[in-house]
Amino acid sequence: MAQSTPGFVGADLENMVNEAALLAARDSRDHITNDDFQEAIERVIVGPARKSRKITPKEKKVITYHELGHALLGYLLPYADPVHKITIVPRGQAALGYTMQLPTEDRFLITEPEIKDKIVGMLGGRAAEEIVFNEITTGAGNDLKRATELVREMVAQLGMSEKIGPIAWGEEEGEIFLGREITRMKNFSQETAKEIDSEIKNFILSSYEKAKNLLSENRKRLDLLAIYLYNKENISGKEFKK
Amino acid sequence: MAQSTPGFVGADLENMVNEAALLAARDSRDHITNDDFQEAIERVIVGPARKSRKITPKEKKVITYHELGHALLGYLLPYADPVHKITIVPRGQAALGYTMQLPTEDRFLITEPEIKDKIVGMLGGRAAEEIVFNEITTGAGNDLKRATELVREMVAQLGMSEKIGPIAWGEEEGEIFLGREITRMKNFSQETAKEIDSEIKNFILSSYEKAKNLLSENRKRLDLLAIYLYNKENISGKEFKK
Amino acid sequence: MAQSTPGFVGADLENMVNEAALLAARDSRDHITNDDFQEAIERVIVGPARKSRKITPKEKKVITYHELGHALLGYLLPYADPVHKITIVPRGQAALGYTMQLPTEDRFLITEPEIKDKIVGMLGGRAAEEIVFNEITTGAGNDLKRATELVREMVAQLGMSEKIGPIAWGEEEGEIFLGREITRMKNFSQETAKEIDSEIKNFILSSYEKAKNLLSENRKRLDLLAIYLYNKENISGKEFKK
Amino acid sequence: MAQSTPGFVGADLENMVNEAALLAARDSRDHITNDDFQEAIERVIVGPARKSRKITPKEKKVITYHELGHALLGYLLPYADPVHKITIVPRGQAALGYTMQLPTEDRFLITEPEIKDKIVGMLGGRAAEEIVFNEITTGAGNDLKRATELVREMVAQLGMSEKIGPIAWGEEEGEIFLGREITRMKNFSQETAKEIDSEIKNFILSSYEKAKNLLSENRKRLDLLAIYLYNKENISGKEFKK
Amino acid sequence: MAQSTPGFVGADLENMVNEAALLAARDSRDHITNDDFQEAIERVIVGPARKSRKITPKEKKVITYHELGHALLGYLLPYADPVHKITIVPRGQAALGYTMQLPTEDRFLITEPEIKDKIVGMLGGRAAEEIVFNEITTGAGNDLKRATELVREMVAQLGMSEKIGPIAWGEEEGEIFLGREITRMKNFSQETAKEIDSEIKNFILSSYEKAKNLLSENRKRLDLLAIYLYNKENISGKEFKK
Amino acid sequence: MAQSTPGFVGADLENMVNEAALLAARDSRDHITNDDFQEAIERVIVGPARKSRKITPKEKKVITYHELGHALLGYLLPYADPVHKITIVPRGQAALGYTMQLPTEDRFLITEPEIKDKIVGMLGGRAAEEIVFNEITTGAGNDLKRATELVREMVAQLGMSEKIGPIAWGEEEGEIFLGREITRMKNFSQETAKEIDSEIKNFILSSYEKAKNLLSENRKRLDLLAIYLYNKENISGKEFKK
Repeated sequence: MAQSTPGFVGADLENMVNEAALLAARDSRDHITNDDFQEAIERVIVGPARKSRKITPKEKKVITYHELGHALLGYLLPYADPVHKITIVPRGQAALGYTMQLPTEDRFLITEPEIKDKIVGMLGGRAAEEIVFNEITTGAGNDLKRATELVREMVAQLGMSEKIGPIAWGEEEGEIFLGREITRMKNFSQETAKEIDSEIKNFILSSYEKAKNLLSENRKRLDLLAIYLYNKENISGKEFKK
Repeated sequence: MAQSTPGFVGADLENMVNEAALLAARDSRDHITNDDFQEAIERVIVGPARKSRKITPKEKKVITYHELGHALLGYLLPYADPVHKITIVPRGQAALGYTMQLPTEDRFLITEPEIKDKIVGMLGGRAAEEIVFNEITTGAGNDLKRATELVREMVAQLGMSEKIGPIAWGEEEGEIFLGREITRMKNFSQETAKEIDSEIKNFILSSYEKAKNLLSENRKRLDLLAIYLYNKENISGKEFKK
Repeated sequence: MAQSTPGFVGADLENMVNEAALLAARDSRDHITNDDFQEAIERVIVGPARKSRKITPKEKKVITYHELGHALLGYLLPYADPVHKITIVPRGQAALGYTMQLPTEDRFLITEPEIKDKIVGMLGGRAAEEIVFNEITTGAGNDLKRATELVREMVAQLGMSEKIGPIAWGEEEGEIFLGREITRMKNFSQETAKEIDSEIKNFILSSYEKAKNLLSENRKRLDLLAIYLYNKENISGKEFKK
Repeated sequence: MAQSTPGFVGADLENMVNEAALLAARDSRDHITNDDFQEAIERVIVGPARKSRKITPKEKKVITYHELGHALLGYLLPYADPVHKITIVPRGQAALGYTMQLPTEDRFLITEPEIKDKIVGMLGGRAAEEIVFNEITTGAGNDLKRATELVREMVAQLGMSEKIGPIAWGEEEGEIFLGREITRMKNFSQETAKEIDSEIKNFILSSYEKAKNLLSENRKRLDLLAIYLYNKENISGKEFKK
Repeated sequence: MAQSTPGFVGADLENMVNEAALLAARDSRDHITNDDFQEAIERVIVGPARKSRKITPKEKKVITYHELGHALLGYLLPYADPVHKITIVPRGQAALGYTMQLPTEDRFLITEPEIKDKIVGMLGGRAAEEIVFNEITTGAGNDLKRATELVREMVAQLGMSEKIGPIAWGEEEGEIFLGREITRMKNFSQETAKEIDSEIKNFILSSYEKAKNLLSENRKRLDLLAIYLYNKENISGKEFKK
Repeated sequence: MAQSTPGFVGADLENMVNEAALLAARDSRDHITNDDFQEAIERVIVGPARKSRKITPKEKKVITYHELGHALLGYLLPYADPVHKITIVPRGQAALGYTMQLPTEDRFLITEPEIKDKIVGMLGGRAAEEIVFNEITTGAGNDLKRATELVREMVAQLGMSEKIGPIAWGEEEGEIFLGREITRMKNFSQETAKEIDSEIKNFILSSYEKAKNLLSENRKRLDLLAIYLYNKENISGKEFKK
């Protein structure tokens, strides 16, 4: 039985410890504090904070609701990983905000309900934008890409679509020979490709419906949290639960 | 939440400052003027002015209306970026004229209505040519390419088509391995490709209709501006608004 | 008449003897014991044991039933290779547990019924998960990939599907020329690709049905074995048969 | 607004001047004559004259009418570039004859009617062959290739087909990375490809009809010019107009 | 008129003589015997005998009937090459047994009936397995691959299918340029690919039917030969005919 | 107007003269005879004669009729090049016989009727085999390949099919960049590919019908010539005409 790759292990951990040590050294301290670690984790995942960016109030409002869309679903969905931190301080090259969700314990297997809740959560940012502002932004582009990829894996690799069945249609990868060539070629028919696409669409649409329904039913909570996050800019997992 | 790439930041800015410094140095001045900056911006975006090209009066007229098509829509469309400058002096290798539109403030997110207005604006040059001369030229080729690419991104990457849904069909990019190989392969079916194409066509056609309608309704303004731009060759954003 | 590649010969054997010698040397013994060989076999196939991983009780339970799904089918199916060992101690980079099945004697030919039972057995891990927990995990991903590949070979290379007939549609492999290039290209039509896919789906679905039925009929045995394996973590082939 | 690439500028010009200088040097003259320039232009475009080739009278007749097909349409079509020279003396590697058409002034924009007349003119050689000899030769192969390419650009890049609309379907070009790889991939569906093909066919067929009709209506002129060109082998633009 | 490549000429012959010389040298003989040549031929075609492999009695029986399936059809089919030797002693890397058929004289042309009988003979191994054991093995995989390739050549290259006609659809092979690249691309349509596949299937199915019918009608001979070959392990062409 | 590549010019000619000089030198002659030239021409086109090959009487008969099929059509078809020599002495690596047809004068243009007769002539070898022996051989494989390629060029490049029209669908060839890569990609739709294939099939089938009819009507001549060529093995163009 093979294991799934958890989000934060091995090399990441090493990286993180080094970052924390660097942060301590920069302050001429000879011990690493918890704050160093917290900052180090974020740096490894999203990059250092960039306070100089000027975000418009409208953008800040969109980002606030977008992140809370992820976070609130992370709280409401039974199989989602608990919310560890929410921030709307821009970091690194591309992130305008993010919601960190960490499993309560190291995981080697992920179940179908867990993957499904993960997908609903990924679509929560965009769902919140649509519900609150009735328009969507480019900010959800990466969420859609990741959600589509995950659904494709569920459907075409992990046999988690009843219509497709327990088959790994996959894509045949060519050989890497002396680092020269990577040729990928679908080894299934257009008919199968069409069925896979149709299942992907169904999964995404129903997950997005679920995300919107859950957020609509919890609109009041969403608005209260939005005021809080807009002003504080960072919320820890503990604060969030309260 | 990820951010969109704004048109003019980072490396561009550096480039621009260097250009401005060079222009000052060439005049043996020890300070950079506002004019240096204005010229530097244009050089970075479109290249230095080439006054030696002989453009026929007919061509100059087409270029005038083409640029005003972009500019007037930039003024009329509620979500378009304000017009900063219009010029019909040929610059760089390929540009016969251009209309510079700059956002009023730095932007990190772009909303769906903003993208839609951007597309209508991109098609304004060709729409003006058709309305005024009842024939089109090769000059709109690049506009069409950029507009089609942007619509494809809206439809297939950003989930901004209701018919396609919040799915990022994208194109799977192969690995760059030691700089040898880039193999791209569509990872969706012909059926999906057909739906995407159909949505692209619908978006472009309705955007083009909108561009033509808006310009037709404002034909008088267009003609007045054309006489002015044809003679002055450069209009600043302020003049244009008046 | 060509022979099939058995799972463990030639180079593997040499590897295995070396590993066993190393294990003996590490203990400063001048002879290799049976235990050295047993450990060496597992190292060559799945890698060294990693005792440090913390697996949750829920995960351990899933892994237990998953491996027993493979093992019990290996016992119940008439043409399957006998079970040699079952373990739920994680090993190597990816394995959370495994079931070793070895043929009673070296094999050069594999018959159609043997391949069919092999496929049913491969799907036994996932079938057990579904029957016992009514949900599936990512742990079956690799089983599905291998089962699908084997069915594809049966159907498209070995002529073991009545509907496709004794034809090797294969995929034409390009030349490896000075280690530069591997280009594969299907040399059959979309129509044939569709028929092959349809046969693959039929084979997988009926094999999976068979796996689930056999395990359901033997649910009591499965539960008893599960308690035993969950506690002991390793079962030899002899213990298993009892 | 982007400009179209005219047929003879920049590097070509430099080349041409060098050729003219060389021709003068070869005659030990210290000044370049107009004849040097005329010859130089032809050398740059079609290569040096090869008088040694023996062309059969039948072939010479076909070449004569073929070139006059281009030239006469260049004269009859309102938007075609004026004829500068016609020759049936074989030149360079492949040309058996050619018709040089030059715009009256430098052009930066090409209009739709101009492109359409260009295409009709390109098909004039073959149209003349069919009308006069009622059979066609391999000599029109290159004309067809260039005409088809230009129509494809009109239809799929420049939005000059009403049925396709103002869309640039294009072909996505891969990256040239260290000179290794060029991978092109259509990024549109079979459905779109079919529509584009159908439009290309319609454009070519109606252009060819137009070419044949115009030449048939001017058959007498064609025959008179043929006698003249067959004997003189070279006609300048001035002679031609008379 | 081009010639077909016979199975055993030129370089092979040289190879074979060298092998024979080596065998003689190994026995310290100064002349090459007929037995040296016989052994040398087999070494060049299938590799040296490997007596150490332990084949199960069941496998040996399958191999016996498989090879006799080839051999008996080689005897019964009017245009097949005569059987030179049958062996079930494993040789080289992959062969578990083989039947050597040699033409009575060197051949430069192969006729359609000869190719058709060759295909029936290739399928004889699998046909014998099915008739005798009512199950098939992986041992026929290579036969199917070779038979399918030969039928594809007949149908798509040699014009030997009435439905396809005297057309060489082939596959366009790219250039090998400085040993870098081999790109193959079908230059025919899906419609043609479908027709070719359908003809391949028809040819294979009717050839397989013929192989099974001939062997069924000669079942007694097959069983007698099987007892003889199972015990002797090698039969020469002369013995076989008797 | 572009020229077609004639079969024997430039580099070939040089090659041929060198060969002739070598042949004279080998005989210690200081002048090149006509026979040297004749032999040299054949060496350049098909390679040196190989008298050692033993061809069976049946094969010799097939080769005789095959070559006469080409030659007789070369005589009967009004636009075919005159027959220069027929030989059934095997030459070079692959040729078992050949018919040399040379144009009466150097050609730069090839007309549609000439190409059509060329195709009929190419299929004459196979047509003769079918008429005389009522079975076909592998010897026509190369003829079919060349004929299909030529028809494809007529149909898809030279606009010589009425159904396809004067369009060069061609295949877009990638760039050869520093000798690394040649990527070809069809730039037309499956619909167009299907139409092209259908036209190719029609052309080949009607050409083959024509070849068979002409040879059947001239069966007596064919048989007389066959007796003559079978015995003499070489016929010059002059003898043939008589």
